[in-house]
Amino acid sequence: MRIGVLTSGGDCPGLNAVIRSVVHRAVADHGDEVIGFHDGWKGLLECDYRTLDLDAVGGILARGGTILGSSRVQPAHLRDGVERAKGHVADLRLDAIIPIGGEGTLKAAHLLSEAGLPIVGVPKTIDNDIASTDVTFGFDTAVGVATEALDRLKTTAESHQRVLIVEVMGRHTGWIALHSGMAAGAHAIVVPERPFDIDELTEVVGKRFSAGKRFAIVVVAEGAKPREGSMAWDEGGKDIYGHERFAGVARQLSVELEERLGKEARPVILGHVQRGGTPTAYDRVLATRFGWHAVEAAHRREFGMLTALRGTDIVMVPLGEAVQTLKTVPADRYAEAECVL
Amino acid sequence: MRIGVLTSGGDCPGLNAVIRSVVHRAVADHGDEVIGFHDGWKGLLECDYRTLDLDAVGGILARGGTILGSSRVQPAHLRDGVERAKGHVADLRLDAIIPIGGEGTLKAAHLLSEAGLPIVGVPKTIDNDIASTDVTFGFDTAVGVATEALDRLKTTAESHQRVLIVEVMGRHTGWIALHSGMAAGAHAIVVPERPFDIDELTEVVGKRFSAGKRFAIVVVAEGAKPREGSMAWDEGGKDIYGHERFAGVARQLSVELEERLGKEARPVILGHVQRGGTPTAYDRVLATRFGWHAVEAAHRREFGMLTALRGTDIVMVPLGEAVQTLKTVPADRYAEAECVL
Amino acid sequence: MRIGVLTSGGDCPGLNAVIRSVVHRAVADHGDEVIGFHDGWKGLLECDYRTLDLDAVGGILARGGTILGSSRVQPAHLRDGVERAKGHVADLRLDAIIPIGGEGTLKAAHLLSEAGLPIVGVPKTIDNDIASTDVTFGFDTAVGVATEALDRLKTTAESHQRVLIVEVMGRHTGWIALHSGMAAGAHAIVVPERPFDIDELTEVVGKRFSAGKRFAIVVVAEGAKPREGSMAWDEGGKDIYGHERFAGVARQLSVELEERLGKEARPVILGHVQRGGTPTAYDRVLATRFGWHAVEAAHRREFGMLTALRGTDIVMVPLGEAVQTLKTVPADRYAEAECVL
Amino acid sequence: MRIGVLTSGGDCPGLNAVIRSVVHRAVADHGDEVIGFHDGWKGLLECDYRTLDLDAVGGILARGGTILGSSRVQPAHLRDGVERAKGHVADLRLDAIIPIGGEGTLKAAHLLSEAGLPIVGVPKTIDNDIASTDVTFGFDTAVGVATEALDRLKTTAESHQRVLIVEVMGRHTGWIALHSGMAAGAHAIVVPERPFDIDELTEVVGKRFSAGKRFAIVVVAEGAKPREGSMAWDEGGKDIYGHERFAGVARQLSVELEERLGKEARPVILGHVQRGGTPTAYDRVLATRFGWHAVEAAHRREFGMLTALRGTDIVMVPLGEAVQTLKTVPADRYAEAECVL
Repeated sequence: MRIGVLTSGGDCPGLNAVIRSVVHRAVADHGDEVIGFHDGWKGLLECDYRTLDLDAVGGILARGGTILGSSRVQPAHLRDGVERAKGHVADLRLDAIIPIGGEGTLKAAHLLSEAGLPIVGVPKTIDNDIASTDVTFGFDTAVGVATEALDRLKTTAESHQRVLIVEVMGRHTGWIALHSGMAAGAHAIVVPERPFDIDELTEVVGKRFSAGKRFAIVVVAEGAKPREGSMAWDEGGKDIYGHERFAGVARQLSVELEERLGKEARPVILGHVQRGGTPTAYDRVLATRFGWHAVEAAHRREFGMLTALRGTDIVMVPLGEAVQTLKTVPADRYAEAECVL
Repeated sequence: MRIGVLTSGGDCPGLNAVIRSVVHRAVADHGDEVIGFHDGWKGLLECDYRTLDLDAVGGILARGGTILGSSRVQPAHLRDGVERAKGHVADLRLDAIIPIGGEGTLKAAHLLSEAGLPIVGVPKTIDNDIASTDVTFGFDTAVGVATEALDRLKTTAESHQRVLIVEVMGRHTGWIALHSGMAAGAHAIVVPERPFDIDELTEVVGKRFSAGKRFAIVVVAEGAKPREGSMAWDEGGKDIYGHERFAGVARQLSVELEERLGKEARPVILGHVQRGGTPTAYDRVLATRFGWHAVEAAHRREFGMLTALRGTDIVMVPLGEAVQTLKTVPADRYAEAECVL
Repeated sequence: MRIGVLTSGGDCPGLNAVIRSVVHRAVADHGDEVIGFHDGWKGLLECDYRTLDLDAVGGILARGGTILGSSRVQPAHLRDGVERAKGHVADLRLDAIIPIGGEGTLKAAHLLSEAGLPIVGVPKTIDNDIASTDVTFGFDTAVGVATEALDRLKTTAESHQRVLIVEVMGRHTGWIALHSGMAAGAHAIVVPERPFDIDELTEVVGKRFSAGKRFAIVVVAEGAKPREGSMAWDEGGKDIYGHERFAGVARQLSVELEERLGKEARPVILGHVQRGGTPTAYDRVLATRFGWHAVEAAHRREFGMLTALRGTDIVMVPLGEAVQTLKTVPADRYAEAECVL
Repeated sequence: MRIGVLTSGGDCPGLNAVIRSVVHRAVADHGDEVIGFHDGWKGLLECDYRTLDLDAVGGILARGGTILGSSRVQPAHLRDGVERAKGHVADLRLDAIIPIGGEGTLKAAHLLSEAGLPIVGVPKTIDNDIASTDVTFGFDTAVGVATEALDRLKTTAESHQRVLIVEVMGRHTGWIALHSGMAAGAHAIVVPERPFDIDELTEVVGKRFSAGKRFAIVVVAEGAKPREGSMAWDEGGKDIYGHERFAGVARQLSVELEERLGKEARPVILGHVQRGGTPTAYDRVLATRFGWHAVEAAHRREFGMLTALRGTDIVMVPLGEAVQTLKTVPADRYAEAECVL
């Protein structure tokens, strides 16, 4: 068999582990040939690739990033390129393509699959918001990084007698906020799924101080917003020179809470550290299993499917299903995390 | 409601997170009273306990060990103590008891539950071998510690051109070996579930050297044994003075492989570092959820049950079911991990 | 002997290790009594303290923060309080006071020492800018945290083909930037000691892209500024509502470099994570030695002095000397770090 | 200039950082050519090498091991090879050779230097026992790994109410034991420099239990031995089949202490994890500075010298001086670490 693999979208710990696993399973166990397209879909469209043998994936299991490079998918661009992609796949005599990527990538994968290309997708997002799988690799690493940061920030918040508002990743969903906030014992967790009421939040944090505590940690997902009318809100955006203005939920919350509580409040924005670097053992195992099972699905000619974790099993799920809805934090999970102050 | 909680058996990262979660949920949310028995079942039998309020569990979420102390359960001792335990529970007017422990503890819990005590168990083992739950807390930390050690050992094995045989925990099951070996890219993984054939193992490692590689890492669970007749085997045990003799699978394998391969081989026994210290974010979340749901089950008067993870949900499972079989590494999981050399 | 100890100023990993060491050496070895003042100098002025015996410092060696609390010193406030402080010291029959703190604290310590109080100072700053000691505890932890973040950010910068401008702590000196930048292999390091020329910096980063590299990491100390006239510069400050406006060197540099290079550039501000949490082994050893030697100096009645590291020895340095100049990054250390692109 | 570099002896975190720094400084800043000999002195004797340009050292700064490979030096073998080495150096038109290694390597370097070869040595040992430098790279990483393990072991020792005897590296000197023991708050530290008296050690640990504590941690360097006549002692060695017998100080101590104290005691041997893997920021900076200054010394034609850290400066020290004595733990450093129980 000849298999093409590519990585697309933002950085995510475990990408290299999937690539390595695909190559190991395909080349060493099945005697397949594997090629890796450079820079995501771009590599497929421009027929830019290299052969991946066992040596090519030596020592990459624990390394962050992707040896193949990545790029953001432009769906329109891809739509125009379907025929070109088909042509390259035919020229290269590929029997299967394994794209590893997030929501955008999987939508593109679905499009190409519908167009007849033999695709087995591997889901990838640190945000953990793909509905068809219990967990995605990268998430555990992101939560681990955020939790370690929160552990450190707690002692500082306490020494300085402050409220720290810590912004973690999660534009649309609050999984990282929920898990890192639970893991670190945050005193409030704010997620996009539940627009916050600033009065309520002030009360929750304020009660903590009334009870004699000297600090509070609020974890907030970057996509969190106030309930409509709850407080003045600046969406950010570009300034008049076209430069991004940094509004941000943590900054706005810290100004507001400082004023309302009469306590020093400071924003901390964890940013990109959450999405790079060496993956945790959990993510390496999950990524390796996804790669292994993607090759198996290809050999079974189960195309148009996605690898997914269900319990402890890896199963195959139709691509079309996978891209329909975002997996959001349900009310009962949020309830579990509600905090004691 | 009045709830008693205790921790029993070996150390396991996440014990304090469960205790804290039980207290937070029960005291803060339900207005319950919680007492903690000291040193496991011993505390229940000897009525040795203290009250746990919110302050008592402050700052323990990320700490290893157990603030309540632990001890190994002596089932016979416990059997004789059933009436005493019942008496103490009555005297203390306890509505529920939440024991947190491993296989032995859960068997004891089942016994006491059958005898009429209102018990909600929380499973605990770094070995991950309790059948009724997808995962137990402590396991992720153990795998993380072992993987980090393996990452470090790889560069040394390579520099020294050696075979390192790294022994990880797992007397009866190979889960830690499987996951840490996969995560670190070990070149062979040896688990108790599949007695190894020394000829086969030698060949696997030998092929690696034939292919020009300069080192190999073999991960072996402490309970692994050779296939009968495969090689001479020393079970260890006490010497004539009653001191433990350290035979050990890693040591015997390293002697044997060195002789057969003509390459330096060295054993590394990771030991207790795998079972102590601060839990990973994953384990803290799982432990916190177990504690939360144990309290909920108590309030629903669902006794004789055990908290368990199924997929992403926490469910309740009958104690009797939970203690029947050990969860072993199935063939298909082992197949996924078979290694490229 | 009766010894008072206090911690003052911002959080710094190792504070608890000093406190513990003072208590261990004084109480266990010398049979002294030790009291700890709460919240820095405030505790001394308000006679707010508690007795510190061996149990009081159990388990704190590896913990971030300070069990005594801290506060920023207000020199004027303290000047007015000299007599009050002297009165409390007499009332409490203290033979020595060991303040642990940064530049401001040491100036205050000097003032009180000149006024006749028996003071042995212990220097503390993550910034490493106290001239009289080779290193201060807290610095190694800060550098370690920043380096780990940089390691992670590298893979993301590479995957996203970006310039990341990473802001680390250091208002007046660039020690953290220098060490973390060297340790992580940053492609440019910008420190307050050398106002940067934006043309030069653009060229350095630009050359890297010309050479075919796909990303760059610039480490910049928060106090870094452009050479006068080199680029438009916003000092930040309060907005019209009195809220802090977040200008920041990393943000301004990223906007400028993006425009000049035509490459995506993003700021990452590591912030408070650098100054909290568990100290590295290096910092724990240094902090422990400082505490030990501070007690010894008190017993030798060497007052008005400061513990300091010189090579591998702990020596005593006059407080007056210690507070005269800031230790800045010298030209030859900066030259060592100049980077290959 | 043409420079040859090689790494010799056991694995040590920071080797790659030195190699990278030599190449960066020499190639990028001076326009030199650099070659790397494979497998230590063996590469020089057999003229086995490769060219090291900037790409060759890309991405290795944080990686453990050595990209050049290593081997143990055989002094006799080397002595016979002096003329051969000189011939290769002449053939390759090398102006300088930079060997990076421990005591044995530096002795070899001294020998070759005396024989007229242009040598600048870089000291390397995780044991920190080279007298002419305050610190060697690799030591901080080893101490960090050991300290993290001790942190974890503490909670287990406490939960299990045990004495843990933790063996760390250090055949001849106790630096790792001293620093990790201090950093982790061990209750006794046993080093080769002070043969232990088993009665005294028993008393120290026993007092802890008398005082109501439930566990104890003893850190012991692998080379520690009892005072003569203090207890029966097995030096280990080969068994009758020529296999190494594992006696070991931790094992013998644990048997002895268990018997004498009537408390469970267990040995933990940390082993090779201390000498591999990614270096700490401290070690990366020190290694990078050593490499930089070695190149500078070569350009100044300061041969027969060794890079060394003195305070915060890198200085050059005659090779002959460096190899004369081992740096042992002095009495006053040991006194600082004596423990409170």
